[in-house]
Amino acid sequence: MNRWLDDLFELLRFASISTDSRHKEDVERCAEWLAARMSAAGLDGAVHFTPGHPVVIGRNEHEAGRPTVLVYGHYDVQPVDPLELWDSPPFEPTVKKGKIWARGSTDNKGQFFAHLCGIAETLGKDGKLPVNLIMLLEGEEEIGSPNLRPFLEAHREELACDVVVVSDTGMVAPGVPTLDYGLRGIACCELTVKGPARDLHSGVFGGALANPATAVGQLVASLHDAEGRVAVNGFYDEVLPLEDWEREMWREVPGMSEADLLKVTGAVAIFGEAGYSSAERLWARPTAEVNGIWGGYQGEGSKTVLPAEAFAKLSFRLVPDQDPLDIMEKVAAHLEKMSPAGVTVTVEAGHHGRPYLTDPHSPQGKAAQEALKKTFGSDPVLIREGGSIPIIQDFKEVLGADTLLLGLALPDCQIHAPNENFTVENFEYGIRLNRVLLDELASC
Amino acid sequence: MNRWLDDLFELLRFASISTDSRHKEDVERCAEWLAARMSAAGLDGAVHFTPGHPVVIGRNEHEAGRPTVLVYGHYDVQPVDPLELWDSPPFEPTVKKGKIWARGSTDNKGQFFAHLCGIAETLGKDGKLPVNLIMLLEGEEEIGSPNLRPFLEAHREELACDVVVVSDTGMVAPGVPTLDYGLRGIACCELTVKGPARDLHSGVFGGALANPATAVGQLVASLHDAEGRVAVNGFYDEVLPLEDWEREMWREVPGMSEADLLKVTGAVAIFGEAGYSSAERLWARPTAEVNGIWGGYQGEGSKTVLPAEAFAKLSFRLVPDQDPLDIMEKVAAHLEKMSPAGVTVTVEAGHHGRPYLTDPHSPQGKAAQEALKKTFGSDPVLIREGGSIPIIQDFKEVLGADTLLLGLALPDCQIHAPNENFTVENFEYGIRLNRVLLDELASC
Repeated sequence: MNRWLDDLFELLRFASISTDSRHKEDVERCAEWLAARMSAAGLDGAVHFTPGHPVVIGRNEHEAGRPTVLVYGHYDVQPVDPLELWDSPPFEPTVKKGKIWARGSTDNKGQFFAHLCGIAETLGKDGKLPVNLIMLLEGEEEIGSPNLRPFLEAHREELACDVVVVSDTGMVAPGVPTLDYGLRGIACCELTVKGPARDLHSGVFGGALANPATAVGQLVASLHDAEGRVAVNGFYDEVLPLEDWEREMWREVPGMSEADLLKVTGAVAIFGEAGYSSAERLWARPTAEVNGIWGGYQGEGSKTVLPAEAFAKLSFRLVPDQDPLDIMEKVAAHLEKMSPAGVTVTVEAGHHGRPYLTDPHSPQGKAAQEALKKTFGSDPVLIREGGSIPIIQDFKEVLGADTLLLGLALPDCQIHAPNENFTVENFEYGIRLNRVLLDELASC
Repeated sequence: MNRWLDDLFELLRFASISTDSRHKEDVERCAEWLAARMSAAGLDGAVHFTPGHPVVIGRNEHEAGRPTVLVYGHYDVQPVDPLELWDSPPFEPTVKKGKIWARGSTDNKGQFFAHLCGIAETLGKDGKLPVNLIMLLEGEEEIGSPNLRPFLEAHREELACDVVVVSDTGMVAPGVPTLDYGLRGIACCELTVKGPARDLHSGVFGGALANPATAVGQLVASLHDAEGRVAVNGFYDEVLPLEDWEREMWREVPGMSEADLLKVTGAVAIFGEAGYSSAERLWARPTAEVNGIWGGYQGEGSKTVLPAEAFAKLSFRLVPDQDPLDIMEKVAAHLEKMSPAGVTVTVEAGHHGRPYLTDPHSPQGKAAQEALKKTFGSDPVLIREGGSIPIIQDFKEVLGADTLLLGLALPDCQIHAPNENFTVENFEYGIRLNRVLLDELASC
């Protein structure tokens, strides 16, 4: 174990911040180190250059008649500001209170490296893996994976696989094995409301002209009914209802009680669509959110203008089988219909991604459940997540493979924040999980 | 006439920008120049120092049994940025196309100086004025007159008067004499909506918590009904209905047609409270305006946060007999009642001022109408204005005197903007108006 920890520390020392061009060399050195480590473990490791940061691929000898498993991870990390809030330097990993403290420890170096260590152990012990393996590590996840889909498309045949394994999501609580089988999709747009040609004096002109800041409020208010449902016509048409086993399972999930949510978020109360629990609202129901709203004067004191324009950034989290483009059409039609008199409303569509859902009771899903049970010693909880991971949909669309999301991140791991950490225990669980999982998948 | 123009040019050359401390000396020199000019005209001119910029007072010999008229004006001006948009330097007055081009030409040096020239002419010709006169010129109008009310209170007896005359409002069109007999009041507040303790990921938490940016939109939307009326309970309780003669008079007022308003504002359509014309909406009906709204992400692209908080700056324009404090209580009660679940809403009251209304058919109002008719050769239109001039209410409350608003500003005079101008014709009208007006008021 100490050897794997030393290796992980070497990996964590690379300041592979993908968004910061001053760290370009750190990112590339990290990629090279990983390819070398893959080869040392007995895989064929290679660095593939892209228009952005490299993709690192490791493969074993593939044999006909065995399933092919693609293990995905990302070796790039988030920036570290504000540095003064870190208790120890982000790129000088240290173990304290049973945790590894470093940027990337949970997101995602610690998690994918546990898989690589598991593979190395199996190869060292058995001389071969029970499956055909492809390990794919990208360096651009934190900047939206701009080059991953083109890479998948260009290497469709070499990357052909039966299932994708990703450890980059969360466990609901320490020691509780968690299989994530669904993600929400997203559709974003920006709303522009224009009124007079310039800001006007609200005394001289107020009352005779529509106010764009009032209008943007009215449009935002029109998105929901009084029960917290999205009031866009046809919005729920394609939403798959929750299955009974899901509602049953989620009733028991740790960390999702009202008290838990209030503690984590600091909110004063829970609020959401009537008739659903918080877990159901977050994982299986679509939403309309205002991510930003602005118009007129925001400074100190008062400036009594009638603003010329006002704006809102909206995003809609989508669930199976909602289609982002269909939803965006319905939203645009709604906003047009609800446009107040006297202003001009335009809607500009932004990025979007489909929701993802796989069957946790498929043979591969059952293999994942069995592997989690054998690793952690208890039945896994089956959850979905409220966020969106577009690359999972890319794996589905380009490689035709479903993804098993076997996350090892704990609720207090502080990803994207100061004092990111990963428990030594979960690192060990991850190594064991890889060995058991490949065994289970071998017989699918 | 040329002599008065030369004098006005001297006055316009003072860069008496009250808000800019670098111009403190320009403001003081301007005050001294004015006191000297008052004395030269035959008044007793004096500069009174205040904690801010000086007040200049000029008086004639008061005689018992005559009405006392206080003529108010302000010798401070707005800043001149952006300087590059001026066709000639703002403090180098010039006459072109029948207009005097300079900062302060209309607002307010040209207007009050016409009164001083009229007084000088009468004193030069008759040796005395027909009324007891007090001319009061302040240097802080453009920064909210912070020291004027204390000055009125400290000099209550010396400033006792029967009526106040102010030329600092507008004429509805060139050559159309205009008596303004009402102003709207104002009540401002800032709305704060708080949700979670910090911005959250809208995927991870969206749907299970109220969104403050959505809530601020809902609160803003709750302020009006579908007919453009303010939906705050009791808001219209104290509103004086329009009188028939007002509705009749305003139907004819130039510059207030839909086409005029659209041209001046660049708006795409007229919108306001159902059942009223634009003039009625602006001058005699109260409003609820959003002066600013903000929350969450406003930058480029998208950042899918569920914002921790959102804000709105609201102002309510009030008409007789609405009371700002009463309205602010009703608004606060409304916002509390409408507060969406899951967020905390607070309302902080801002500045406020009462609406103003005087009777244009009172003896003094009739004298003003008669003076306008004799000066311009046609019946004056009687209007109110949509803005708020708090000092008018101060004259009423401290000195007990009503104010006659005899404005000489034309719609395209560009006050507070580059290329401010005042027609030579209106300067002449102003001089004549003063002479006729004092005569008319003498017999009230």
